Order: sequence, then structure tokens, then C-alpha cells
Amino acid sequence: MPKLEPVKGTRDLYPEQKYVQDFIFAVWKDVGERFGYEDMEGPLLEPAELWKLKSGSEIPEQMYVFTDKGNRQVAIRPELTPTIARMAAAKQKSLAKPLRWYSIGRFWRYEQPQSGRMREFWQFNCDCMGGDTMRMDAEVIAVSAAIMLVAGATEKDFYIRLGNRKLIQGLMAAAGVDKELIQEVSRLLDKKDKIGQENYELSLKDAGLSQQTIEALDKALSQKLEDVEEQSLDEEGKQGLEELKELVGLLKAYGLEELVEIDLSIVRGFDYYTSTVFEIFDRSKKLRAVAGGGRYENLVEDFGGERLAGIGFGMGDVVLELFLKNIGQLPEYQKDVDALVIAVDDSCYLSCIETAQAMRMEGLNIEIDLLGRKVGKQFEYADKHSVPYVIVIGPEEAAKKKVKLKDMDTGKEEILTVDQAMERIR
Amino acid sequence: MPKLEPVKGTRDLYPEQKYVQDFIFAVWKDVGERFGYEDMEGPLLEPAELWKLKSGSEIPEQMYVFTDKGNRQVAIRPELTPTIARMAAAKQKSLAKPLRWYSIGRFWRYEQPQSGRMREFWQFNCDCMGGDTMRMDAEVIAVSAAIMLVAGATEKDFYIRLGNRKLIQGLMAAAGVDKELIQEVSRLLDKKDKIGQENYELSLKDAGLSQQTIEALDKALSQKLEDVEEQSLDEEGKQGLEELKELVGLLKAYGLEELVEIDLSIVRGFDYYTSTVFEIFDRSKKLRAVAGGGRYENLVEDFGGERLAGIGFGMGDVVLELFLKNIGQLPEYQKDVDALVIAVDDSCYLSCIETAQAMRMEGLNIEIDLLGRKVGKQFEYADKHSVPYVIVIGPEEAAKKKVKLKDMDTGKEEILTVDQAMERIR
Repeated sequence: MPKLEPVKGTRDLYPEQKYVQDFIFAVWKDVGERFGYEDMEGPLLEPAELWKLKSGSEIPEQMYVFTDKGNRQVAIRPELTPTIARMAAAKQKSLAKPLRWYSIGRFWRYEQPQSGRMREFWQFNCDCMGGDTMRMDAEVIAVSAAIMLVAGATEKDFYIRLGNRKLIQGLMAAAGVDKELIQEVSRLLDKKDKIGQENYELSLKDAGLSQQTIEALDKALSQKLEDVEEQSLDEEGKQGLEELKELVGLLKAYGLEELVEIDLSIVRGFDYYTSTVFEIFDRSKKLRAVAGGGRYENLVEDFGGERLAGIGFGMGDVVLELFLKNIGQLPEYQKDVDALVIAVDDSCYLSCIETAQAMRMEGLNIEIDLLGRKVGKQFEYADKHSVPYVIVIGPEEAAKKKVKLKDMDTGKEEILTVDQAMERIR
Repeated sequence: MPKLEPVKGTRDLYPEQKYVQDFIFAVWKDVGERFGYEDMEGPLLEPAELWKLKSGSEIPEQMYVFTDKGNRQVAIRPELTPTIARMAAAKQKSLAKPLRWYSIGRFWRYEQPQSGRMREFWQFNCDCMGGDTMRMDAEVIAVSAAIMLVAGATEKDFYIRLGNRKLIQGLMAAAGVDKELIQEVSRLLDKKDKIGQENYELSLKDAGLSQQTIEALDKALSQKLEDVEEQSLDEEGKQGLEELKELVGLLKAYGLEELVEIDLSIVRGFDYYTSTVFEIFDRSKKLRAVAGGGRYENLVEDFGGERLAGIGFGMGDVVLELFLKNIGQLPEYQKDVDALVIAVDDSCYLSCIETAQAMRMEGLNIEIDLLGRKVGKQFEYADKHSVPYVIVIGPEEAAKKKVKLKDMDTGKEEILTVDQAMERIR
């Protein structure tokens, strides 16, 4: 049989690689819970329609879609937000507000695999739903920043780009962009970094914008928050300006002032965002966004519920791992073994099993030889993996129901009962 | 827009359901590590061929297979063992033996959803590879039993059915089953519980077995281990008998004597099992197997590696949850919040954020109101969710950079600095 290659864009996570992912998962879970978020999860396959209405144009193109045996068009989820909106809509009445949900799950997108981007990835999702207050937005952004800090990053390593869709749209209108062109211009703006300034401007012209409007738009979107003239904005734009200012004040209380950079030109790809939008970037600008999210005010309604505004973000494991690697914060692989139990000869093996098993059932992590290796080889193994204690059982110890415990750090050896040995190891 | 229904056979895991699953995951991970197993993971999609050769006839029928955009036949994995064999084969030389691997991941099978069985499920997989010794088999079976015990089950709740494929095949041959019929008879035997005794016997006759052979086979497979006559067996059968006897002795040392029931008639569905086969069942016999596994001695070779024998098992979350529910061992949902921070009025909200954030960055789980709820409502919330401490900040506390800490258990209130409050809460 020929060797079967894994599917392109996937990773085989051997223990050393999985160790790093588990570190990331542990930080995600820990930080989510520090903020009072509750773990949840949706199905991996959903009806393909779920993403066709509101996720923007790119997502449905990247989906793994197929017809299942029940003749339904299903997709492997490319992102979680529509599932969250579906689940919130399904139990809207019985769920206490605000909903604070987080999850860690797998996702698939058919993209070109490259540094920081795989076809299969895991994503931390964090969503807060049930209110129109910027307090929610501030909290969710604070979760994203806390993950970075708890994982080992500092203010020198990353920053948060913050904008507001209502304000952008207001600025577009003020710059002279026709109302019916705003969605198209937003899409081009979202792609600007990918396609480059020149192509961006050409596309704007193709869309029907005059040179004058393009210049006015550039100027409007590159200004500072404090320079935005409120009176030039339409009602929605004014609301967006107010929201963004309030949010900045709240983020200051979270201690995130140095991390936040207002950028009036960010849009994010998803069509369902209606207000706050934000992204986390590494300051070295080597990577794509480490996280991105925004406020969606109509999505639950769109999925058959009543109005329930929310804000959420996603953070992928592939790009976060690369970011942590770049800043030297990946943990070193380390086996978590409390003790290795060694039989002096085969006649003592059953005693070793009894000892190991008694200790495991009390919660200790105990390894035992399976291949009949020599005692010396087993000590080498304990050394190599920094196992703190070795328990040696010979015929004498076995007969007395005792063990010889060696502290690998000090070299000290003691003859003890199993209970005494457990006490030392703890 | 019409309400979108989730895909049949999937579960929406709201926080209360996910809490139970997280309990199961935590037991799986904990027990795996107590035995020195290392976390690993493979891709969710693999080339469909991976399951076509060795997984038996049922698995490929149940797979979610589709052609991806690169025109490859891929499948959503129905089980993990072939992936493990592929991964072991790919890095066979550099991996230290024995490999002790565990993982917790999602799987899909197109089956009729019913009690204890969904189309999407999570499975704990535990595999030990790299030796031909029954010490491996005993350890892996001990892991499966330890999970049940650590999750709260006792010897009264479950048992382990244990058999050996070499021995079964030897018994078949001794009963007069032709060599070329052994695989077909094994498949029928595996289906016996599903199709019933009568259909089983009819199928055996269809396959070409005489009434006499059927009776001899029934008798051979229902005898006790100590009654098996070694001299009636072929070489492979003798080897299987020896393996099984050795394994029983090892399992006794693990303290599992009361849990093990030898059953010479169990086969398990996967074609790749060659020796030990085992299953965990609830004693009430209400459920399908809670776990099942076996020794595969040629699989890594089949996937392009050198010979590397292994043993492993899978345990599904759906059936384990149902089992734990039946025996009253499901954990009760409980929010894990250390303290709720309450602003007396909106003017103190920024102080609340500062306090909450400082505590979170020290590792505490802190909730804060987002919707401007009244103080009384917030205390009700803390009561309902058994939050142990409430921190109240009014204008006076905010001005002095202090907080009022209330111990919800004793009712005692203290004015403290944030650091002092954290010390109390820890």
C-alpha cells in the first residue's frame, strides 16, 4: 500500500506540537473564565445557507460544501458567528442576558496554506449578546487583549486597531460616496491591504467614484478621532462617533490605552458587523490579524429571533502560535510525569503495577516500563524527561510491600510504604 | 428569513450541556495523563482511502465522503485509528517507543440518531504502540477502566468484556469452520446481538456451515477460559490463549479482577484487530458499548511503515454521558465566578472596571454588570449563582481607591484595598 499523505492545509499534531496548542487552549479557557464567559459549542456541519446571507462574499467561496446522504447542502463551518446567532435565536426567551459565551473549536476554509494560515484551524470565539451598550464591546475587546497578555505578550508586541462601521459609513457619505455604493466601497476598503493602494483606487473609480471623492475619502478615513467634525456626519455617523468615543473611555479604564489605535478605515470582511470593529495585530506587522471581531446588531433577528445585539471576536490558533513563536513565548515541551516505577526484574513487575495503579488512582501521573527495559535505561529516560522521582521495586521491597523512592534532584533514597511515597511525591 | 434547523444528529451545546461535556473531557485528559499518555491530534478530514482498506465494511458505509475543490476524495473521520497508524508510520524512526498517545476529538458517522448515539460525537482515543507485550494491552485496558472509576462509576455499574481474536479464530477452526470462512463468520458473530440468534444461525448456514459445526462453534465460544483445551487449538489459537491468560494475570495486578469478564465470542467490527479485543458495558445492559478497542499488529505496516504493533480504544462522549446520567454521576452545572463587582451608580462604573480588571489579571474570575442593572438585581444574581463574594463600589470607595467586600456566606462586609480584597477571595 502506498503512503497516504494527509490532506493539504492540515496539521498532524504529534505530542510536541499538541503541547503548544494545549498551552494556547488553556490560556483561552482561563481568560474566558476570568471574565465570566461560559464554554459552549455548536456543530461542525451546518446548513450551507447559514453563511450565504450575511457572512460577506469571501466566506461562502472558501467553504467546504457538500450534499449529505439526506440530500442537504451542508458546510464545514468556516466561522462560528452565524451558529451563535442561530443558537441564541432558538432559545432566546429562556436564556438570561447578557449571554457571555466562549468556545474553542475547529474550522475549515479553502485558502492557500501559508505562514500563519492553514485550511484547518482552531479558533477561540468570544461573544457577548443582549445589550446595546458599549460596555459589552469594551469587555469583549478586553478579553482579546487579556489573552495576548496572559500568553506572554506585552504592549510592545501587539496593538488593537479599533473602528466603527457607522462612523466609517458616515465619513463615506460626508466625503461624497453615494449611499448605494457604500457597501461596495466598504468591500474594496477591506481588501485594500491585499490589492494595494493603486488597485484600490482603480477599483473605486470603476465603482463610479470621482478622483475628488476618492481624495476626500482618503482624507476622511485617515484623520484622527479627535479631528472628526461631528456636524459633517449624518445621524448614523454621529451615533458611530459617540459609540467610538465612549468605547475609548471604557478601554482606558481597562488599562488598554497604550494598546488601542483608532483606525477609521477598518471594515472587517463580515457583512453582519454594524458598529464596533476591531483587530489585533503584531507590532512588527509580519502577520495577518491575530484576532478580529465586531458588533452585530441584527444577526439574531436575521436568523429568525427577536432583536438581540451582540459583539464577538475570533482568534485563530495558527497565527497566535506564530505570533508567540516570533516573540519567544512558546512554552517548552515538558512531560508531566510525577514518578517512574521500575522493576528490578520481571518477578517484581506485578508489584510495580500495583504500586503505579494505587498512585494513579490517587491522582498522580505515574509511568511504568512496558518493554522490559533494563534498569539503567529506565533511569536515563527519567533523567531525559526530568521525572522528579523514581520508584524502584526489587524482590525485597515487593516481599515487604515497600518501595525504594529516589529523589532525582537530591539523589536521596528512602525505603517507604506506598502511602509514604505518595506523600513525598505530592 | 426562515429559522434554520441544525443538521440532524448534531447537538447545540449551550453552556449547561457543554459543562457536562467539559467534565467528561477533564476526566479523559486527567486519566490519560495519570498513565503517562501524551495528547495528540490528527486532521478532521483525511483521504477517504484511509478507511477503505482496514476498517471493516460498516465504517466506509457510514462515512461523510465528498470531493474537495482540489478534486480529492476526502472523508470526515469516523474513527481515529487509521490516522494514528498513518502518523506513526510517517515518523516511525524518530519517535521513541512505546508511543503513548491520547486525544479528544470530534467524529462523524451517518447512522440513525438514537439514545446514546449521534451523528456527530466526540471520542477519547488512547493508543499504545511499539511492542508485542501484553503489558501494553493491560495498561490500555486499565486506562479505560480508570476513566469509568474516576468519573464516578463503581464495579457495580460496568464491566469489561475481554476476548482475543487469535483464540476465537483457533476455536472456530477447532469447531470445524473452514479457514476461508473465518472472516465471514467473524463478521456475523460481531452482528449477532443486532440481528438475533435465529438470523445469525441462518446466516451461518447460508455461509456454508453445517448444523453440527454451528453447534460446535456455539459450544466453543461460550466456554470458560479455564475449560479451553489447548491441544485442540492451532498454533495461532494457542498463542491467543497464552496472550489472554497472561493479560488476565496482569489485569489482576491492576485490581480489575472483579471488572473483567472473559467472553470468547467478542470480535469487534474493525478488521484490523488481530489479538486482544475488549469492550466496556454498563451492567444494566441498557446501552451499547461505552468503549471498545483492541490490538492491531499490522496496521502501521499496512500504512507504509515498518511493523509496529499497537493497542488502543475509543470511548464516545454521548454514550458515556448517558451512562453517567443513568448512574447519577453527572455533575451539577455551576458557574465558576469568584466575585461580582457592583457599581452603586454609573459614576462608579469605571472604578468597577479597574477593580475587576486588576483582579482578573491576577487570575481571579470576576463578573461585572453590563446592562446597568440595579444593585438589588445584581445581588439576586450573585445569590442565584452561588457567587461567594460581592464587591460594591460607591462614590466614597471610588474616591478612596477602596472597595467594600461582602462575604455572601457569612454576610460580613469589609472596606479593603483591591489587594486586600484579592487576598480574602483567594
